Amino acid sequence: MNILVINCGSSSLKFQLINSESEGVLAKGLCERIGIDGKLTYQPEGGEKTTSDKAMPTHTEAIQFVIDALTDEKTGVVKSLDEINAVGHRVVHGGEKFASSVVIDDEVLKAIEECNDLAPLHNPANLIGINACRELMPGVPMVAVFDTAFHQTMPSKAYMYGLPYEYYEKYKVRRYGFHGTSHSFVSKRVAELVGKAYDETKTIVCHLGNGASICAVENGKSVDTSMGLTPLEGLVMGTRSGDIDPAIMEFLAKKENLDIAGLMNVLNKKSGVYGLSNNLSSDFRDLSEAAADGNEIAELALDVFAYRVAKYVGSYTAAMNGVDNIVFTAGIGENSAIVRTMVCKYLGYLGIEIDEELNGKRGQEIIISTPESKVKVLVVPTNEELAIARETVALV
Amino acid sequence: MNILVINCGSSSLKFQLINSESEGVLAKGLCERIGIDGKLTYQPEGGEKTTSDKAMPTHTEAIQFVIDALTDEKTGVVKSLDEINAVGHRVVHGGEKFASSVVIDDEVLKAIEECNDLAPLHNPANLIGINACRELMPGVPMVAVFDTAFHQTMPSKAYMYGLPYEYYEKYKVRRYGFHGTSHSFVSKRVAELVGKAYDETKTIVCHLGNGASICAVENGKSVDTSMGLTPLEGLVMGTRSGDIDPAIMEFLAKKENLDIAGLMNVLNKKSGVYGLSNNLSSDFRDLSEAAADGNEIAELALDVFAYRVAKYVGSYTAAMNGVDNIVFTAGIGENSAIVRTMVCKYLGYLGIEIDEELNGKRGQEIIISTPESKVKVLVVPTNEELAIARETVALV
Repeated sequence: MNILVINCGSSSLKFQLINSESEGVLAKGLCERIGIDGKLTYQPEGGEKTTSDKAMPTHTEAIQFVIDALTDEKTGVVKSLDEINAVGHRVVHGGEKFASSVVIDDEVLKAIEECNDLAPLHNPANLIGINACRELMPGVPMVAVFDTAFHQTMPSKAYMYGLPYEYYEKYKVRRYGFHGTSHSFVSKRVAELVGKAYDETKTIVCHLGNGASICAVENGKSVDTSMGLTPLEGLVMGTRSGDIDPAIMEFLAKKENLDIAGLMNVLNKKSGVYGLSNNLSSDFRDLSEAAADGNEIAELALDVFAYRVAKYVGSYTAAMNGVDNIVFTAGIGENSAIVRTMVCKYLGYLGIEIDEELNGKRGQEIIISTPESKVKVLVVPTNEELAIARETVALV
Repeated sequence: MNILVINCGSSSLKFQLINSESEGVLAKGLCERIGIDGKLTYQPEGGEKTTSDKAMPTHTEAIQFVIDALTDEKTGVVKSLDEINAVGHRVVHGGEKFASSVVIDDEVLKAIEECNDLAPLHNPANLIGINACRELMPGVPMVAVFDTAFHQTMPSKAYMYGLPYEYYEKYKVRRYGFHGTSHSFVSKRVAELVGKAYDETKTIVCHLGNGASICAVENGKSVDTSMGLTPLEGLVMGTRSGDIDPAIMEFLAKKENLDIAGLMNVLNKKSGVYGLSNNLSSDFRDLSEAAADGNEIAELALDVFAYRVAKYVGSYTAAMNGVDNIVFTAGIGENSAIVRTMVCKYLGYLGIEIDEELNGKRGQEIIISTPESKVKVLVVPTNEELAIARETVALV
């Protein structure tokens, strides 16, 4: 089967066409500036990447261009729409309604819409993408794969905040967690790599990208995760603050004469390692280089980042009363040996030993702990698109 | 020496007269409703507690009544003001200016006033108390003992938030931590009880009262603590939320039509185990009884509380790369065997074993872990007034 995987934002749309038997990517690309002017980037397997301006007043035109590109006589990878057997849509927020992926019908669409409040920037865009696909590809089965679904196994002690209970009853204010597709994909792969049954192992997944979260996976189930009601909570990220004293908001509102929307903008877009490094960079390559050159504020940003990761690992080890595997994934997790070393330095008390030569290798699935290490430490590249394709195949 | 220890709030004032040689409390009491009408509660050592209405338009009258009571011919414990050799004042916020206790002079008063912004509800009241004492007890040396001072040894990776660096430069937005007098007092006592040098031991102090915080004390120094810029951050407390996704504030502001001040009121006064238990109680005795009777929401509140404590312990174990001692103190920490058991159940991976018979004993300094336990677990009653008296004696 060929699965079209769609990740739709408010003015952009990423896609991959994946063959489910080979799990190879037949083609991939990106529509940008939808509703503004429009730009299509497209790359078939083994072919060149091309970029072209296309008028995309709505997502419907964007998806039409994607279909045209995929079925183009010269650069296309399938003959016709008939060879696209299903579409897998990334949906950010499934609230408490969705604990797993689901085949999309009118009822599901309505339920996703009811979660819009919880992800006002993301879910409406996801729905637009789904509707545009349904319009242009009638009869093709579509599946929604939720960022939150994997975490629906969390116990109440992990998902309830210390807030008035009525906010949970009235508005479903609770921890949801995100990156679920990645945490699920990577933790499953870890079990395979270490040769343990997935439902008999305790794994902590450190998904460290521009957005970053940590997940405690006990016996195949997410039992806690660092992002909360929204993707702002938890780790210090590229530009997001992660955890802060909530009273800082009142303090800063007064000092900076900001309203809540203004504060949220600062916490989401001007904070994290970017803000902490005095706007030096949100990119860990830049920060690592600057720190190596003796830039103290870059060093501080890295220290704070790694320290927070290590504390979450320690915290989730307590949550599961132990840990068998710790795995690093996503941009920083996969590529920054320095960050991995910095994090693991805190964890000697767990009997963790890193083989720095193995830790220096890049871009592969690898166990970087020594054979003597009491906890296995791994690097496993994540692949959310493949995970969405797999989920889709399983349901159609 | 006789030390008068003063803990002054905006409309109340707690006091103890402590003899520094015997470390006994000669008398103690409380002024309430200062500025409203006024009520004095007074109890001499071994004597009866008496309560009387007294007009206290300002703190000056309140302190005059305290002095009158202490020197009263019948119920007093000293002959005259001359026998009060020094006054130790609890001051909540010392900012970055004060890393230890200090003898109060005009310059110190100015520096404390400069920290008012960081603790607008507490520092001004503390200053009023100091000024009233200086007026009525001229020539008596006075010492300020700060809740924040012990934590000034934290490294920058622990005290910096993932926020724009300029907020630290301009407004000193950072983690300060509180309960420092208690964390210092209790961690020192732990070293004595386990027979280790204070500067060669890793201790996690769980100060669990109506306000609650955890502190990692490495080699005699605070290296991290759960309260932050203000005492709102960290654990789920009696009525305070502790850590939440900061984006919840925007979400609730819209849903409940609240401004930031309204939200802060909810987070400080209507949250914590009180809010989580649907307003059942902020008192752990009530919650424990209700939970034992099968009340599920009381059980949830206790679960969330203990789980958060255990996660912080795990987190600080990573922060210090290990832990030698874990100690429980303050109202809940000293008196709730159930909470201690619930917390320690998560910590088996550290080699912790609790002797439940010892854990059942009350109101004493005790090691509650078994001799085989790899980490010692203790209960040590805190005594902030005695700690303030000791700090005062050391400086005058």
